[in-house]
Amino acid sequence: MRINHLLLENYRNYSNLKLDLHPAGAIIFGKNGSGKTNLLEAIAYSAFGRSFQTIHDDDLIHFQRDFFRINSEFYLNDKNLNIDSAYSRNNKKIKINQHQIKRLSELFKYIKVVYFSPQDIDFSAGSPGFRRYFFDLAISQFSYQYMEILKQYSRVLKQRNALLKHNFSREEKLTWDESYIKLGTQIIKKRKEYLQKFDPKLTEYHNFISNNNEVLTSEYLISFPMEKGKNIESCFEECLRKNEKKEIENQRSMYGPHLDDYYFRLNGRSFRKFGSQGQKRSLVISARLVQANLIFESAGDYPILMFDDILADLDTGRTSRILQLLKTDHQIFIATPNLNHYEIAGFPKIDLEQL
Amino acid sequence: MRINHLLLENYRNYSNLKLDLHPAGAIIFGKNGSGKTNLLEAIAYSAFGRSFQTIHDDDLIHFQRDFFRINSEFYLNDKNLNIDSAYSRNNKKIKINQHQIKRLSELFKYIKVVYFSPQDIDFSAGSPGFRRYFFDLAISQFSYQYMEILKQYSRVLKQRNALLKHNFSREEKLTWDESYIKLGTQIIKKRKEYLQKFDPKLTEYHNFISNNNEVLTSEYLISFPMEKGKNIESCFEECLRKNEKKEIENQRSMYGPHLDDYYFRLNGRSFRKFGSQGQKRSLVISARLVQANLIFESAGDYPILMFDDILADLDTGRTSRILQLLKTDHQIFIATPNLNHYEIAGFPKIDLEQL
Repeated sequence: MRINHLLLENYRNYSNLKLDLHPAGAIIFGKNGSGKTNLLEAIAYSAFGRSFQTIHDDDLIHFQRDFFRINSEFYLNDKNLNIDSAYSRNNKKIKINQHQIKRLSELFKYIKVVYFSPQDIDFSAGSPGFRRYFFDLAISQFSYQYMEILKQYSRVLKQRNALLKHNFSREEKLTWDESYIKLGTQIIKKRKEYLQKFDPKLTEYHNFISNNNEVLTSEYLISFPMEKGKNIESCFEECLRKNEKKEIENQRSMYGPHLDDYYFRLNGRSFRKFGSQGQKRSLVISARLVQANLIFESAGDYPILMFDDILADLDTGRTSRILQLLKTDHQIFIATPNLNHYEIAGFPKIDLEQL
Repeated sequence: MRINHLLLENYRNYSNLKLDLHPAGAIIFGKNGSGKTNLLEAIAYSAFGRSFQTIHDDDLIHFQRDFFRINSEFYLNDKNLNIDSAYSRNNKKIKINQHQIKRLSELFKYIKVVYFSPQDIDFSAGSPGFRRYFFDLAISQFSYQYMEILKQYSRVLKQRNALLKHNFSREEKLTWDESYIKLGTQIIKKRKEYLQKFDPKLTEYHNFISNNNEVLTSEYLISFPMEKGKNIESCFEECLRKNEKKEIENQRSMYGPHLDDYYFRLNGRSFRKFGSQGQKRSLVISARLVQANLIFESAGDYPILMFDDILADLDTGRTSRILQLLKTDHQIFIATPNLNHYEIAGFPKIDLEQL
């Protein structure tokens, strides 16, 4: 898939911008603060229905205006798809081919974008929430119903936490526990399923990028103990039963996929502790490439890749091996303040100083 | 000041390394994962008595060894100063010229190092704790007694929080409150004093780096309300008196310098919200340069500067203006996987692949 046209009105630093985009993508070139990330953010907004930089749509409105609008034309499966996103005063409207959608997850059915962000470097060493978010979004792009399960679980979790703060009847709790366990188990299964596909490819890509020097592996850490021969659901249930008193004392749900984590090893040792900055960056680039590859395998279409200047800190060997991996049919956007980092002959350029 | 020699035994990926260092510094060149950051970390360890990457000294020991040692020879005020740091099984010994020191803060009297870290990018948008740590360390280098005040405050805070969790006598609390307010006020005053020197220079440096395009300002945010015409101490006291019930309910100290923050504006608007990645990086580079300049003004000696490959994401204009600002008598170490980022003719190189 690819994006053909992009139109921005009052979006961030762009009061009015119209761009025709090349099927190969573009190097987006400009000084610091010229709006490179904002351009990528606008494309990603079309794909996800929200910004990856802020949860406040108000921040996206051009200074002293009162609305913004992003209109994107995508091309997929031989058809054009128009996504129109508009926001004004707490009112967000997203239309796919003129039809207003009810849930953001509807976008996930169509538009596939993988964004390589500078914040990604926190992937291996940052908070578990960051890793869960990374994978949850990746799985949603892979199976768009997953987002709905997540939402339902999060509603039940909220209710269950409220319950644990007050006096409750035994039956009431059992009813909530039932959905809590059912939805939680579904999430854990989906995540483990995804990781099973993800892990061997991650090892392979990272090994290639590191020139066969680094063996990277990943694991899923469940927040409750698993007993041999028992399935997830019954271990989850047993854990809740055993720790009922503890949860009531602490007034919150202390086990479940909202507390699970992912763990990485580099040559058998903790990545978090012993990975260098450059290795951390390589890891997340490998992870995003795997994400893109799995989308391709499941949807049969190449997602759009966006690199927000995250190759700059890598050594020349790693950079050239990543660029080798990218020689596919993806449409690729690379934002950078230094053209000489990317000597991709003939790749189209968007020079923000000259717009 | 400068570092002349560095000797590492069983430190991180170095089993045995001896380096003679040039008064101008060096470009430390090597692939991702080759140990560039570890080398800078070792120099910084000599200056601060601890790592900036981990609080566990055990993580610094070379794989499968049981101790590490860093021996550094510094040159300052026409004298040589030997710092010997050794760690084994929870036992850390730091010697200055053969004499074992009792407190890490003694190091702050002598060794002045400013480290420009890749994590610094979180400076403006990350957690308030990160900003407090940045400034607390900078102030400690400026006035080394400050560290002791911080430590005392943190002890009193701990005691006061323990008190708020239990039944206590009125007199007991008043005694603790007295030291709490006294030490807290000293910290706030020191921080505001530092910021008063810091802010105009920050504006000046950042304006230069951004080619006169960006006006950057900083403010100190106190966690309790200040009333006009009243001093910090009495406002602090009044706030604690007014909110005594609230603090008891919440079982913790809810006002004081451990909750204060620093705030930055770019051309009058929130930096956190509207600063781009490159601008955030420029901000913290400006901040570190100001820190170095204030150390120079107070100690009459140029601190050692260490850049952990943080210039790579900047546009060429900004990079060259930063390098202009650096044309001073600082000893400078720059770690990078790409030599072509830094065309500093004649600057010594340390090639990690060839050690």
